[in-house]
Amino acid sequence: MKNSIIAGGAGFVGSNLVKLLINDGGYIFIFDNLSRGRIDYISSLLKPSNKKIFFLDVDLSDLNLTTKAFEFASSHCSIDEVWHFAANSDIASGISNPSIDLKDTFMTTFSLINSMKIFNISTIHFSSSSAIYGNLGSKVLHESIGPLLPISNYGAMKLSSEAIISAATESFLSRANIFRFPNVVGLPATHGVILDFINKLHNNQNSLEVLGNGSQKKCYLHISDLINAMIHVRNYKDNNKLFLCNVGPLDSGVTVKYIAESVVKKINPLASINYGKENRGWIGDVPSFNYSIDNILKLGWKPRYSSKEAINLTINEIIRSYKW
Amino acid sequence: MKNSIIAGGAGFVGSNLVKLLINDGGYIFIFDNLSRGRIDYISSLLKPSNKKIFFLDVDLSDLNLTTKAFEFASSHCSIDEVWHFAANSDIASGISNPSIDLKDTFMTTFSLINSMKIFNISTIHFSSSSAIYGNLGSKVLHESIGPLLPISNYGAMKLSSEAIISAATESFLSRANIFRFPNVVGLPATHGVILDFINKLHNNQNSLEVLGNGSQKKCYLHISDLINAMIHVRNYKDNNKLFLCNVGPLDSGVTVKYIAESVVKKINPLASINYGKENRGWIGDVPSFNYSIDNILKLGWKPRYSSKEAINLTINEIIRSYKW
Repeated sequence: MKNSIIAGGAGFVGSNLVKLLINDGGYIFIFDNLSRGRIDYISSLLKPSNKKIFFLDVDLSDLNLTTKAFEFASSHCSIDEVWHFAANSDIASGISNPSIDLKDTFMTTFSLINSMKIFNISTIHFSSSSAIYGNLGSKVLHESIGPLLPISNYGAMKLSSEAIISAATESFLSRANIFRFPNVVGLPATHGVILDFINKLHNNQNSLEVLGNGSQKKCYLHISDLINAMIHVRNYKDNNKLFLCNVGPLDSGVTVKYIAESVVKKINPLASINYGKENRGWIGDVPSFNYSIDNILKLGWKPRYSSKEAINLTINEIIRSYKW
Repeated sequence: MKNSIIAGGAGFVGSNLVKLLINDGGYIFIFDNLSRGRIDYISSLLKPSNKKIFFLDVDLSDLNLTTKAFEFASSHCSIDEVWHFAANSDIASGISNPSIDLKDTFMTTFSLINSMKIFNISTIHFSSSSAIYGNLGSKVLHESIGPLLPISNYGAMKLSSEAIISAATESFLSRANIFRFPNVVGLPATHGVILDFINKLHNNQNSLEVLGNGSQKKCYLHISDLINAMIHVRNYKDNNKLFLCNVGPLDSGVTVKYIAESVVKKINPLASINYGKENRGWIGDVPSFNYSIDNILKLGWKPRYSSKEAINLTINEIIRSYKW
């Protein structure tokens, strides 16, 4: 039974984790500024009968406010671990304005690490990203590959976050787990290609406009697999101060074309699909990658769903929950 | 003939570069907050007769001030390139207070990149560090190695700087040269093990106290070799947007013991040397590393001095210039 702070706990990944952790019976402190997260995602958990779950609307890019939030949490119990999902998840927005990722993706990490030091909390679990690898063409993205040359400010600030967490393991952290996420799909869907396609088809039933030529190939992991992976690593015991791994499916991904066709098939099989000409959708998007998950396989975790299964499962989940 | 901004141009490396660039006849704008740099290092260059060299005392961690400084420079001429050496060079100080490297090592990069975007300057040369590799034990530090897990906030903020420069090549930069420096020695000596030993022997002629057991082995490059390397890469023409390389000698380094003995031999051969017990001097120090310089060798550059030669040359230079 651990007492946990979940930074970004009202977001897509964070809220799914909270739903699982709540069964353990420890204290849970959700810190979120609701810029990307939504109170709806966790409101059902915030019952007056549960005295061990707290939500704090706090901007974690502000070190002073973050320290106050830690003070609040620490006044209830001894905090065992911090889960850090707070970030700008809209990669494209951070290309035009680098301050967004500086603040929401990096300074949140800086504040959390510094507050953890002050309050003697020595375990962190961090959501990094495949975006830290940049565009390495056909090379397999193994954890042992370099140089790391991200092509988006989002990727840059995720790599920066990894770096200061790494430095902190040298000074005060006793354990840091760094998870490099691929594209994660599932509910509640806040953004991403599936929701985008469903929204487009909702607005125009007859045709689907696709950014790029549809050949971009990526790995997709279902949120349930991601949560399982993180819990598996969190519960794995070894003496290393830092564990870093890619998390993803075992396959090498599916194309945007496959996703577009799958969405069309389920919503309106008669709709036409119109592709762009470029090999990518927007600046900062990595067209395709081969992802190695060797590090986490070695710890005995395996994904349940393939990229195709994760996509189809999510299309069904979104359609079922969609307010038409 | 290029017009250049030299961020950190009053520091150890920056001032040596300025002395070389001044012969080209282009405009030179030295931006430095004099926290580590010293006006002495460049004052001889700031003659009233030279109307094309300017010094601005500016804190580059402040985006607004940085933009004003770029405005000043751009009002004189069209700026061709930015050299970025501004950083906290005291690694140990950044371990106890992470805000130092956040501000001086990383935010300086953030401000420069953003100002370059505003003023349409598309070439940057950046001083990164071997510290971005962290402690990889006996592995050869090749540019293609990963994961990058720095053990100091200095290393973390240098890696973060690389990352946002990389992302900027995707949006507006046409060329970024990233140089990962080893330990660099020469005049003017601001810090480092040689100066430290000479100072200690100056204060106590009879014995030299060494942090650590003296077995730490590192590569040392003489400042003249480093400057030549950077100019070589800057003048090399290819179509890549980003070039990244380690810079160093061809050998695998010398031990602290060798340096201590060399200093003692030249100052007081009768002095005793007292070593500590640990394999390292302080938290965040990387005990030893093997450095590959494959990437820059391929461009036709070679170092003139070995680590041993660089050390002995520098000991002589410091002793000659020392105010006893």
